[in-house]
Amino acid sequence: MASDCAPESAFVLMARNAQLLEHVKLEITELNPKAKVAVIIADFSSDKPIEKLEEVIKALTHGEQIEAKFIFHNAGTIGDVAKSSSNLTNTQDWHDYLHINLISMIALNCQLYKILSEINDLKTIVVNTTSLAALQPISSFTQYCVGKAAREAYFRNFALETDSRVLNYSPGPVETDMITEIGKSSFDPQIREMFSPTSTQSTDSHRKRLTPKETVSKLIAIIDKNEFDNGGRVDYFDS
Amino acid sequence: MASDCAPESAFVLMARNAQLLEHVKLEITELNPKAKVAVIIADFSSDKPIEKLEEVIKALTHGEQIEAKFIFHNAGTIGDVAKSSSNLTNTQDWHDYLHINLISMIALNCQLYKILSEINDLKTIVVNTTSLAALQPISSFTQYCVGKAAREAYFRNFALETDSRVLNYSPGPVETDMITEIGKSSFDPQIREMFSPTSTQSTDSHRKRLTPKETVSKLIAIIDKNEFDNGGRVDYFDS
Repeated sequence: MASDCAPESAFVLMARNAQLLEHVKLEITELNPKAKVAVIIADFSSDKPIEKLEEVIKALTHGEQIEAKFIFHNAGTIGDVAKSSSNLTNTQDWHDYLHINLISMIALNCQLYKILSEINDLKTIVVNTTSLAALQPISSFTQYCVGKAAREAYFRNFALETDSRVLNYSPGPVETDMITEIGKSSFDPQIREMFSPTSTQSTDSHRKRLTPKETVSKLIAIIDKNEFDNGGRVDYFDS
Repeated sequence: MASDCAPESAFVLMARNAQLLEHVKLEITELNPKAKVAVIIADFSSDKPIEKLEEVIKALTHGEQIEAKFIFHNAGTIGDVAKSSSNLTNTQDWHDYLHINLISMIALNCQLYKILSEINDLKTIVVNTTSLAALQPISSFTQYCVGKAAREAYFRNFALETDSRVLNYSPGPVETDMITEIGKSSFDPQIREMFSPTSTQSTDSHRKRLTPKETVSKLIAIIDKNEFDNGGRVDYFDS
């Protein structure tokens, strides 16, 4: 994504892991040496607004002519795949899952939207990383499905009620660390096999996995074209 | 619904308000004098499993030949309609809303499903009261939309992972106490007007409101026909 942006773009990266953040920062500056990159170590399981967010964004954008404003929501966890939906009885576990995957995301979104709205009158473009799981059940992914459906519903209302452009983007099956966890922990033997590292790479489910680069290129093309329904969803596999 | 059931049906009614529960119990026994009705005062904002649920159900069903088992989830609140989705920043408020409208419902559903599964091998039929709001944004209804979308996602997975029959039923716009609250509190003047008691009864939104009896008759017909997709949704207005 960094290589598709204007040379003097500013990035604010937020995640828990400082080392990985610095790694992404390095990648961005290698691709785009003039980019300004700030990292904020933020734990979305905490219950506090992100500190210094406004100062960091103001410092990066002060005196610059801002031509486009984006928020990308990409953080997420898979949830408890070891239990069927009829055994997810621990209410605290549900609160924890929804805090990370929905509620803290909403709080951050409100915080960022307000800060970006004060910069200029351009519409902020908000991209919510979603999944086919928002629409379809997947065995052992109950919490993930619930979280993704809830996020899309939130952003449909956000598109309706604010002066923004909102895209729910479903990136397709991407190679991520989640895969290993699912292969180990699912209560469903078929799902464990499907996500197992020893599973043959020639199965359909593997052959269809995308690289982050493939799916991000598609996302950028969709944003560039700017024809998506506001608050609607677009899948990588949509034509 | 009571008049459509077998004479010796057993009902377990759960809600916060003891007086209203007794009123419903009276209505059921007037329509169906042989029905057995138990009431349990249960506050879904609490974090505990419903006490004595198993004893109550066992007492009602012991020695009876059970021919059909139903769970109806109908409880719900409208959420904070006074705030736009960009101002719903209070994380505790989100936790409280989702506790009542999603998380405690899931815990209760798991508890009931387990108890009913132990009675006999017949499939339990689970009906989740949903809304068009699960699919479409409605100004000032962000929390309601999020809760309904999340519930449907939960029940899609429940249908996939358990041996049950699950229907997400959207009853259409029914006259309930929520209407008054929306007319008073929405941040959106158009929504306040639409739900205002002084709003002319001849507007479209009013003319389309259904009585509980109309929509429940339709629901019973759908269950009787038993052709709905498992875990799918059916709306009152679907043909």
